Amino acid sequence: MVEQRTTPIRITGARITPVAFADPPLLNTVGVHQPYALRAIIQLDTDAGLVGLGETYADSRHLARLNAAAEAITGLDVFALNAIRATIAVALADDLKSDTAAVGTAGMITTASAVDQVLSPFEVACLDIQGHWLGRPVSDLLGGKVRDAVPFSAYLFYKWAAHPGQEPDRFGEALDPAGLVAQARRIIDEYGFTAIKLKGGVFPPEEEMAAIEALAEAFPGMPLRLDPNAAWTPQTSVKVASGLAGILQYLEDPTPGLDAMAEVAQQAPMPLATNMCVVAFDQLAPAVAKGSVKVVLSDHHYWGGLHRSRLLAGICETFGLGLSMHSNSHLGISLAAMVHLAGATPNLTYACDTHWPWKTEDVVTDGALRFVDGAVAVPTTSGLGVEIDEDALAALHEQYLRCGIRDRDDTGYMQSVHPDFELAGPRW
Amino acid sequence: MVEQRTTPIRITGARITPVAFADPPLLNTVGVHQPYALRAIIQLDTDAGLVGLGETYADSRHLARLNAAAEAITGLDVFALNAIRATIAVALADDLKSDTAAVGTAGMITTASAVDQVLSPFEVACLDIQGHWLGRPVSDLLGGKVRDAVPFSAYLFYKWAAHPGQEPDRFGEALDPAGLVAQARRIIDEYGFTAIKLKGGVFPPEEEMAAIEALAEAFPGMPLRLDPNAAWTPQTSVKVASGLAGILQYLEDPTPGLDAMAEVAQQAPMPLATNMCVVAFDQLAPAVAKGSVKVVLSDHHYWGGLHRSRLLAGICETFGLGLSMHSNSHLGISLAAMVHLAGATPNLTYACDTHWPWKTEDVVTDGALRFVDGAVAVPTTSGLGVEIDEDALAALHEQYLRCGIRDRDDTGYMQSVHPDFELAGPRW
Repeated sequence: MVEQRTTPIRITGARITPVAFADPPLLNTVGVHQPYALRAIIQLDTDAGLVGLGETYADSRHLARLNAAAEAITGLDVFALNAIRATIAVALADDLKSDTAAVGTAGMITTASAVDQVLSPFEVACLDIQGHWLGRPVSDLLGGKVRDAVPFSAYLFYKWAAHPGQEPDRFGEALDPAGLVAQARRIIDEYGFTAIKLKGGVFPPEEEMAAIEALAEAFPGMPLRLDPNAAWTPQTSVKVASGLAGILQYLEDPTPGLDAMAEVAQQAPMPLATNMCVVAFDQLAPAVAKGSVKVVLSDHHYWGGLHRSRLLAGICETFGLGLSMHSNSHLGISLAAMVHLAGATPNLTYACDTHWPWKTEDVVTDGALRFVDGAVAVPTTSGLGVEIDEDALAALHEQYLRCGIRDRDDTGYMQSVHPDFELAGPRW
Repeated sequence: MVEQRTTPIRITGARITPVAFADPPLLNTVGVHQPYALRAIIQLDTDAGLVGLGETYADSRHLARLNAAAEAITGLDVFALNAIRATIAVALADDLKSDTAAVGTAGMITTASAVDQVLSPFEVACLDIQGHWLGRPVSDLLGGKVRDAVPFSAYLFYKWAAHPGQEPDRFGEALDPAGLVAQARRIIDEYGFTAIKLKGGVFPPEEEMAAIEALAEAFPGMPLRLDPNAAWTPQTSVKVASGLAGILQYLEDPTPGLDAMAEVAQQAPMPLATNMCVVAFDQLAPAVAKGSVKVVLSDHHYWGGLHRSRLLAGICETFGLGLSMHSNSHLGISLAAMVHLAGATPNLTYACDTHWPWKTEDVVTDGALRFVDGAVAVPTTSGLGVEIDEDALAALHEQYLRCGIRDRDDTGYMQSVHPDFELAGPRW
């Protein structure tokens, strides 16, 4: 029974390709999405010939860290995830002294674990390789799927009809309740989503409350969420929360910081959720102590990959917190990872967020991930279950080189269109 | 790259064999170890022909639950650990309404998760099978070892020279400081341990303090721990803690319950540790809120196996708690699992407990696990790295049948020798 055939699968290097894909002018409290969203695609090579895929932010500082990490972990075994994390932490130690801001979030997330953000795509790629070697889907490496398909929410945005100087996209303008209801109807008709999230913080709270009320009327019984990205004072937050009692499933990040969130939480009739004030492990203990939130939106891109997101899930279960899932603009590798993770996480009981409907381009071969009734089936093929389309990857890399965007900057882009736009926090 | 060769490895049944192995008359606050300690040995069979090993308590109620669980999980895939846990929870639901006491601890642990206690040996067996199938040690399924060998502590006991009517064992009597120092010297000479734990709660606190002081003098610089199994009032605990300031590395379970522990923790100069008041996930949130302990002694036998023990480790790291490891009387399968777990858990920084030196019999083939300088090398062969010696298993099962012990009962056995012995909590 006991055999001596342990063979490491050693990392021989990583191809890290920044890509840019077209993104509509989606509005938020810090500005508006630029014409292209950036992602870094990781192809992790091994001496076994197996290649693992990862996807993460592509802001310039993050790219530099990814390259440093890739070099540091070359030679390690893809099963040595503890050593890979420790090695990345050492490799980044000096760099991290100067800057621990979250990347790729346009300043909306102000602190995060840079080690976990850098680890994430490599960990996912290692799991992809483990899965291929085993002939098992990644979900099997996380204890096995507990649901066949993962439900997502319709992620609505206030938006312009078009980027300045461009043709309108297929969704058109949404700057008022009627526009959002039309947007929701279109997205739900196409994807079958069974929950709705509205990105708020764009217009005065009364207008966004009216939008939520219009959505509640148009989609009776559908769980609704509102996320103003901490655009409100605690006082405004409590007013909105009270006004939307019985209508919102949860209210996301109404106000900035653990203390202000705790103040609102005590008075809000619905649970508060966050992907801003609890985005790293060292924020969990104070959040629990203060009672700042009832729901944590996980995101494997900054929680350190799939295993550490499972740890977050276990912590949430242990400390009586609900668990949902956050999304940034992303491509198919990330969606696959999100689906494997959510599919294998018993207490992830909320429909997850995704920006998927907003994109028109990808780097993965079409067809592996499909929305049916608002949910994506957990892939049953080996690894993540997605493959790189090398032509598409090359094209989106060309687009990255051409577009000139090197760091996400929703605020700067907004100011280029509306020079009087100012960051304000809280805005109302 | 994406292949369609996922093949489940289905559980076809479990051979659950209760065994009894000779155990010396080790004293504790609830009585004395009986002449035999009980364990249940799990051999989990699969349709792939691979067999996984697990080891757990063998008290009669637990054996019944193990059998029910084994039947319930037959047909499941060894990678489907989420489903295996859920299935066991359903299978035990009725039984658990009536009794959630921890098993195999002679009443020293009063509540635990029976689901996690029953899950544990099956999860370990599934990981053993996964490892064999992969050609990987179990530590690789836990993120890979972060240390080549796992340090253990010398676990000292007050003890009689012999069980009544038997010949003295090789360690002889230890009922005073000199006896314990001699015991420590013998065990450390043989095993090379670099930390010492004394099981206390047997004699008045002043005598046990004198024993610790004698050990400190005999083994200068060696980390020392004292564990009276909650035999003391908070007041006594604070007095002992103050008296042993600068001498104890940590003080284990001086007093019963989260509130009394919190009271002592506020005044004790050293960290308090526990394997009594935090033994299940639902006790973590109140323990953190109250500040009851600084160190949790993990034990995969009641924390639900190796993955859930890793979750505990992550929770401890996240909430600023130290992590050590508890032991009951155990055999080689348990030691192998403990070593893989500890070897792959970065924040398990204390030397682990083990009863290993006290046993003279085992069910595993000799030689896979060896103490060198007080530490056991993490096996690098596939799975747990230990094999059943079928003759030894049969012999210890015969011993189980013959010995007549069906439930651990330190108190009853003590009373059979000293009829005036009474349970008291706290005793001093």
